[in-house]
Amino acid sequence: MAIVIIRQDNKIDLWKNALLKENSSLKVYSYLEEHPKEDITMACIWKHPKGALADYPNLKCIASAGAGVDYIFEDDTRPKNIPITRIVDPYLASDMSEHVLSVLLAHLKNLNAYKLDQVDHIWQPKDYKRIKDVTVGILGLGELGALTAKDLTSVGFKVQGWSRSKKDIQGVKTFAGPEEKDSFLKTSDILVCLLPLTPATEGILNKELLSKLPQDAYVINVARGGHLVDENLLTLLDEQHLSGACLDVYHTEPLPTNHPFWSHKKIQMTPHYASVSDTGSVIPQIVENYKRLDSGEKLQNLVDMNKGY
Amino acid sequence: MAIVIIRQDNKIDLWKNALLKENSSLKVYSYLEEHPKEDITMACIWKHPKGALADYPNLKCIASAGAGVDYIFEDDTRPKNIPITRIVDPYLASDMSEHVLSVLLAHLKNLNAYKLDQVDHIWQPKDYKRIKDVTVGILGLGELGALTAKDLTSVGFKVQGWSRSKKDIQGVKTFAGPEEKDSFLKTSDILVCLLPLTPATEGILNKELLSKLPQDAYVINVARGGHLVDENLLTLLDEQHLSGACLDVYHTEPLPTNHPFWSHKKIQMTPHYASVSDTGSVIPQIVENYKRLDSGEKLQNLVDMNKGY
Repeated sequence: MAIVIIRQDNKIDLWKNALLKENSSLKVYSYLEEHPKEDITMACIWKHPKGALADYPNLKCIASAGAGVDYIFEDDTRPKNIPITRIVDPYLASDMSEHVLSVLLAHLKNLNAYKLDQVDHIWQPKDYKRIKDVTVGILGLGELGALTAKDLTSVGFKVQGWSRSKKDIQGVKTFAGPEEKDSFLKTSDILVCLLPLTPATEGILNKELLSKLPQDAYVINVARGGHLVDENLLTLLDEQHLSGACLDVYHTEPLPTNHPFWSHKKIQMTPHYASVSDTGSVIPQIVENYKRLDSGEKLQNLVDMNKGY
Repeated sequence: MAIVIIRQDNKIDLWKNALLKENSSLKVYSYLEEHPKEDITMACIWKHPKGALADYPNLKCIASAGAGVDYIFEDDTRPKNIPITRIVDPYLASDMSEHVLSVLLAHLKNLNAYKLDQVDHIWQPKDYKRIKDVTVGILGLGELGALTAKDLTSVGFKVQGWSRSKKDIQGVKTFAGPEEKDSFLKTSDILVCLLPLTPATEGILNKELLSKLPQDAYVINVARGGHLVDENLLTLLDEQHLSGACLDVYHTEPLPTNHPFWSHKKIQMTPHYASVSDTGSVIPQIVENYKRLDSGEKLQNLVDMNKGY
């Protein structure tokens, strides 16, 4: 029995080494190298090329190297009767919350503008804002949104949140449904998008919505690139309705080097790294399931084939 | 009666306008313009040129436009029997605490490195650190250091502090005196300098001290430029003992444009603006005392002439 790693980013060697470090007796292959396909019992994958799972006659488990598994269900050529496991990362929500807090404070304290000033050797003090004076509005109060809202409240921010159905989070003013969205928007000094990407939320960060934010509002998108209408953001920044934005996600990733976001002074970019499953915390979960596969024990973090997550 | 503003930075007009906005019937002059010296009853000053207070025969109050008054006592030509008032800014410590938190999180989440990557159109994810895994060491546990330590603890950082004499701050491991300094340093992943500048602390951030920090430690100086030996910091950054530094204060301010800090990729600079007395919160204090001067009431925030603060 052996493991094949299938992913299209540049992290195959990282994962291979991390698996071997956890247990040096494992047999681990990259799907790009010559490897004995009939030996493979587990495929450890992340956004694999469609069809890449079809060639393994003795495959017993598809192990997603992240929390998401939607990309597996989108591949019709996958072997259908094999269990799928996913990563349950205890830090996914808290990492996101810490990222949002870091971005909020950098905005309040002008750290990005100072970095650009430093590049140009310019000494130019700028007035800062205080935590207590700022209302943060969180679009989406799922697991990530709810923890972020709670954490920001405890730091001293005024926090409000909007979701499809009404939520109850201590210390957070909550709004729900289309009828309460405008009241939510017009009182949010900083908008944080943490919605899931669905047909209903695609392109939700458009001119209509962003225009309802108060003058000089700041926008943080840490959900999905598909939520944002890029040109609308640029227009509202250039018309000075918005004071800036911090983006972690994009329609195409990596963002093409000719995209205007790269050189826009009011946009702070991070490379889809707000909250990631790091090998250190997920490798043991993969290796444990591989061991269970061998001994016939029940696998951990199994995906429900009917629900799809 | 009238007010004269005496300061050597470029903020005289800012203060003049802010005073007039608070009360348009005030008579306010810049010391640089033609003004009737015998009318002046209050001098609103900040780091005035020595001797500039000697020319006002009817001066009744020297109002420092900041919390510090040490620069007034250093001027032997000042009129000695006139009350001195200072600003008591309720936000001085909390602004500092918020600045330190913003800088810490920007470091954990690589925001400065991402900004430089953005300038170069480079997509390069970098591993981040988590709040719970980092020990912040605060050098100096006065009013600012103590509040910062307390706030960082409540956000989830492990916090320890060093001061000359032993302090007791809930949730903070405290070290005191020369004999405990090494233990403090070698366990501080991030060092924050919030010491007062005295002959004993001048140049304290030197090679000897900084070398005792663990490999890849990060240094934040928000106290005074005189605490840091600039060349020693550069050496330890370039030898990769330190992973970076964030500086708000410098030996000369503004920092001369040919100083190597400006273009060092591991240094984040802010222009001595971590915590400032903004005109909005201090102008009412000045105007209130001016009113009291007129009506003969007791002035607020009087400096004790014997203690010197």
